[in-house]
Amino acid sequence: MSSYKTANVVSSAAPPDPKSLLQTERAATKFDTDKLHWFLEGNQERSELFKSLTQQMERDPILAADLKYYDLTKEQQRELTAVKIDRIGRYLENDTIPEFQRRLSILGLFDPQVATRVGVNLGLFLSCIRGSGTVEQLKYWALQKETATIKGIYGCFGMTELAHGSNVMGLETTATFDEDNDEFIINTPHIGATKWWIGGAAHSATHCTVYARLIVKGEDYGVKTFVVPLRDSQHNLYPGVTVGDIGAKMGRDGIDNGWIQFSSVRIPRFFMLQKFCKVSRDGEVILPPLEQLSYSALLGGRVVMVADSFRMISRMITIAIRYAIGRRQFKSAEAEAEAEDEDDVKETQLLDYPLHQKRLLPYIALAYVVSAGAYKIERSIESTVNDLEDAVDDDDEAGILKSIDAMKSLFIDSGALKSTCTWLAAEVIDNARQSCGGHGYSSYSGFGKAYNDWVVQCTWEGDNNVLGINIGKPIVKHTIAVIDDGKIVKGSSAFLTNTKEYVEANGKKPILSSAADLKDLKTALKSLEVAIIRLSYNTSKTVRKHNFDYAGAELVNISKLKAHHYLLDEFLRRIDEFEQTELKPYLILLGQLYFSGIVVERFAGILLTVNVITTELVGELASSVIPDLCREVRPHAVGFTDGFQLSDMLVNSALGRYDGNIYENYFTAVKELNPPRNHKAPYSAALEGMLNRPSLEERERFEKTLETGELLSR
Amino acid sequence: MSSYKTANVVSSAAPPDPKSLLQTERAATKFDTDKLHWFLEGNQERSELFKSLTQQMERDPILAADLKYYDLTKEQQRELTAVKIDRIGRYLENDTIPEFQRRLSILGLFDPQVATRVGVNLGLFLSCIRGSGTVEQLKYWALQKETATIKGIYGCFGMTELAHGSNVMGLETTATFDEDNDEFIINTPHIGATKWWIGGAAHSATHCTVYARLIVKGEDYGVKTFVVPLRDSQHNLYPGVTVGDIGAKMGRDGIDNGWIQFSSVRIPRFFMLQKFCKVSRDGEVILPPLEQLSYSALLGGRVVMVADSFRMISRMITIAIRYAIGRRQFKSAEAEAEAEDEDDVKETQLLDYPLHQKRLLPYIALAYVVSAGAYKIERSIESTVNDLEDAVDDDDEAGILKSIDAMKSLFIDSGALKSTCTWLAAEVIDNARQSCGGHGYSSYSGFGKAYNDWVVQCTWEGDNNVLGINIGKPIVKHTIAVIDDGKIVKGSSAFLTNTKEYVEANGKKPILSSAADLKDLKTALKSLEVAIIRLSYNTSKTVRKHNFDYAGAELVNISKLKAHHYLLDEFLRRIDEFEQTELKPYLILLGQLYFSGIVVERFAGILLTVNVITTELVGELASSVIPDLCREVRPHAVGFTDGFQLSDMLVNSALGRYDGNIYENYFTAVKELNPPRNHKAPYSAALEGMLNRPSLEERERFEKTLETGELLSR
Repeated sequence: MSSYKTANVVSSAAPPDPKSLLQTERAATKFDTDKLHWFLEGNQERSELFKSLTQQMERDPILAADLKYYDLTKEQQRELTAVKIDRIGRYLENDTIPEFQRRLSILGLFDPQVATRVGVNLGLFLSCIRGSGTVEQLKYWALQKETATIKGIYGCFGMTELAHGSNVMGLETTATFDEDNDEFIINTPHIGATKWWIGGAAHSATHCTVYARLIVKGEDYGVKTFVVPLRDSQHNLYPGVTVGDIGAKMGRDGIDNGWIQFSSVRIPRFFMLQKFCKVSRDGEVILPPLEQLSYSALLGGRVVMVADSFRMISRMITIAIRYAIGRRQFKSAEAEAEAEDEDDVKETQLLDYPLHQKRLLPYIALAYVVSAGAYKIERSIESTVNDLEDAVDDDDEAGILKSIDAMKSLFIDSGALKSTCTWLAAEVIDNARQSCGGHGYSSYSGFGKAYNDWVVQCTWEGDNNVLGINIGKPIVKHTIAVIDDGKIVKGSSAFLTNTKEYVEANGKKPILSSAADLKDLKTALKSLEVAIIRLSYNTSKTVRKHNFDYAGAELVNISKLKAHHYLLDEFLRRIDEFEQTELKPYLILLGQLYFSGIVVERFAGILLTVNVITTELVGELASSVIPDLCREVRPHAVGFTDGFQLSDMLVNSALGRYDGNIYENYFTAVKELNPPRNHKAPYSAALEGMLNRPSLEERERFEKTLETGELLSR
Repeated sequence: MSSYKTANVVSSAAPPDPKSLLQTERAATKFDTDKLHWFLEGNQERSELFKSLTQQMERDPILAADLKYYDLTKEQQRELTAVKIDRIGRYLENDTIPEFQRRLSILGLFDPQVATRVGVNLGLFLSCIRGSGTVEQLKYWALQKETATIKGIYGCFGMTELAHGSNVMGLETTATFDEDNDEFIINTPHIGATKWWIGGAAHSATHCTVYARLIVKGEDYGVKTFVVPLRDSQHNLYPGVTVGDIGAKMGRDGIDNGWIQFSSVRIPRFFMLQKFCKVSRDGEVILPPLEQLSYSALLGGRVVMVADSFRMISRMITIAIRYAIGRRQFKSAEAEAEAEDEDDVKETQLLDYPLHQKRLLPYIALAYVVSAGAYKIERSIESTVNDLEDAVDDDDEAGILKSIDAMKSLFIDSGALKSTCTWLAAEVIDNARQSCGGHGYSSYSGFGKAYNDWVVQCTWEGDNNVLGINIGKPIVKHTIAVIDDGKIVKGSSAFLTNTKEYVEANGKKPILSSAADLKDLKTALKSLEVAIIRLSYNTSKTVRKHNFDYAGAELVNISKLKAHHYLLDEFLRRIDEFEQTELKPYLILLGQLYFSGIVVERFAGILLTVNVITTELVGELASSVIPDLCREVRPHAVGFTDGFQLSDMLVNSALGRYDGNIYENYFTAVKELNPPRNHKAPYSAALEGMLNRPSLEERERFEKTLETGELLSR
């Protein structure tokens, strides 16, 4: 918010001065926040790209966000989103793909609606074609039809149905082969099979990759994918295609999610995506053995959500820390004890309270640790998908099998990370908001829309609980195979191979028994492995006795622990290889706070039951380890959040601007966006009518008065 | 949603039939849900009043809510709220006070904005006058000026300032006595003292109870309360009063929260509320000894929030359960194992998965238990406030002292319950939403607005963390006094008197060591007492070593455990006295699930460190106790939620209607509220412009082509 009005106003007493409090902290910061950013973004080059992309967007008159964003109605959000997609498409025409992916990742932080709309078109629609179509099919739809530059056609992703989400194999839309006409007939058999939540369908998309059951000669071959045109080049719906608007949502109202019903819509046979399944002219169905890979379209989205989580956590905690530095509240026991004259004591900065530190500082640490995991998993999916495609192109069977193994590992890691990190980010948004007290409830704080836009990440593209189960299950299966058959596990769960060592009587000793153990991050990592091993082992007993469904809650916990193991492992590896050695002690400190304040704190009950930690140490954790670590991190809190290098536009919060001038920024914003006048509301007549309404007796025409009573009783 | 359109549509296959699934459950319910409602509401009479009040409101053309409510813009919400206040005021003219309070409590469930707006006027503005004013002052403002019937004047509550919320004693607005004119001069000395968040100030309120520092003859007497008129009878702001609109919020946009600055506004001396503090004509300040009671205005609000929590939890869990009955997803291991032919197996209802049961069923139990606590604390505040007023009126010093003791107990109990229950309700809304998968994200599910409107309860009228500390502190002080001085503690924390017995070496044995202990609710209650005793004792050591601030996190945990103790205690007492003995086994089952699935589950780490439970039992809790209890509750889930007796209007969710017809209800609502046409958006031109934009080369005027390159390089 900039203002042409003068900020210098009449005060009859000294106003609060949050600005200088933040400046003091910044002046005392002992490390180079620019270099810290290299760690977060991967390296110096990526850090600089981050800044130049941010600069382009914050100077762009269409893309840049400000606090007015929080006042937009659904209709305004829809229109603005469309205009922004057009704008971002023009950058795309000049960007390399990696550049554009990073641009989209940054855009997703301050305008997730636009990022998602573009992501559905390029990420889901085209990924589906890339994953399930032939190379020629991809070339045709992506390049010849110009989808890849957001032009010509606009795609949506038709997987979810009203009555089927997570169970993709159970979808009920049909694609029946009509041999006479060499066409597929796409049909929605009943209300439950209506395609639902389809982003971009309500108003924008011209084409849809439809997941439908392939029916040939009366036989059901299961769910395959088809490109189905929805709208012609004049943007009118084709006959047989019924589309509606899903309407208002908890957030992301800028996305035109729609529903689609197909009433015997015909498409040419060659609109079927046929890398993994072909139907010949005479109705022969050819199914190669690689079927399972055709659902990899969703993997990319999950990986992106890990990076999204890092960015969202960093943004939210930046606001909360700047507020907690500038805000004073009560006088702390410590301040009063140190003071000579109680009246001279100023109120204490929020962040100097141990509870406030405990509520916020571990989240700074979380952001740093998640950044490392996000970077790693991004690299992994790139290389795995490329390797697989090369192997398929070369018909290299050994290469294909190796890629499938890597893909399975990636499925576990990305699923565990997606669910765990998106849940954590939702928690951070909520707790950061609460830490700003009532002011966090103002839309201009940024928290409300951030939360409402965010939380869909916990249910879409793999519901977090369903994902958790699907990740926990193969881990427990590994455990059973290790126990029963001495299996050797590969990939990121290789440590499960040592199961026997850690579940037999003499291996059951705790890994964490002193504060020093908690702070030694190698031991911390080890403790997570042992926790997963033992929890998975215990769960395997439940599974043998009952079944996997019965152990659902434990499976989700295994998945969470697996995610934390991945994050910590990668964080430590990255510290090892980081060249700015002077920053390492600070990063290690953050790792320690992450482990104690995020992981052990929330899994204490489980870690105790699998005897990974001692009861005494859990007691110490709360009474001294976490408070002491927080106290160590406290002086660097501003430096660590400055290290995220988030410009005011990216933060987009009246409470979280770089200058720390919380009250003036907030008040100025509120006044500019809601100019005070005499302040009668447009609906003032209703209010005045209420206040000045005649008495009840008069409105009752005096029919119930004592006088009337006497009269009517005569 | 009613529809004039026919619902019977063409299907080419059998659609899902969620409706009959719910009917089946209902037919199998073994108890009388009407009588269950007597328990929840307190007794049969109150249950019937609940129903008749609900009926009046759902038939009222202005008050009744429907799904359109979720599509309203901020401006529409503001106007509708004003119209509804007028309407509810007309009911108030005929209601008794207890009737109206219950009406407001029900209204708060389906339209919290209206309930809050009325609550600020009657609950905060008038409660402040009642708490701090003389009887004559109350009579004047409430009755003579007709505020009590929402007429004549409209009050707001001017406590919070931009830079001061929780620390009321630190407020900076001044009320300076001007002896010459026998007036107070109300002034906002600087931006930080701007009154902020004041509900009703932006557009509605005519008067405000202002918390301001009393300055007489240069001396600061601390914060007192004053009635300050804001707008005249033509609804124009008085000179010197500047009011602005706070603008958009995360939720409750229907409330016109405002900010107020006073620039030397003069009010007569007798506008000061002077039950506890008087300024004489010549500037003598008379301060009686009962000062601390003048902040009791907020207590009533806290008590109401406990009942609000019960109602919100019951509404949210009703939606989630009805959805989980009607929704089928995957085939469970159990169903497949039992089936003869796998293809014949239908997908499994969500609620038949153990994880889904664990995610939802404990919240049903929570609702039942909270209802008991809410009823009790409501009765307590009524009697305590009445006793105190009687004692003050009669100048009965012993009575006053006794009432002060009761007030202190009430402060602890209401604060612990308010913070604990509002947090839990927020959690329930969020988890109930997630349990409905993607559909929970639709506004028409009801979850989004419920959450956004709700969460302010966790920060307003006593921020939950600040409250938690303020509740934990006196408990630890009690403990210290018991240890050091053998103090005998009275009231609801009386069990602390036994501290020594449970913290000495031989008293340190676990209370809960078998599944039977967990299910024996007397033992459960005992275990909570011992947990509080031991945690408070451990915390007292931290406090002695450092200070109270250092132990902030533990204090909040003590407060939460205290709340659960209060709830369980009262729940058991109510079961004992409940006359419908045939229902008791069901209530006890709910109590068991509440204790294991809500309390022990989340405090396992703490209970282990204070040795209240054994490690083995915590392991069993997850692997069998909670799953088994859930399995016992499962057949009654629909009956228990039907027991809340929430009409479709109160539930107001497309997914949660009584008939269970989830897909048709949802689809019909989406279509009616967003009628499908050809579905071009109003902003279609922007979309089409994007899709049909000329090529980059053309837009670059062919300046960068190879041909141009050759030309320009010659």
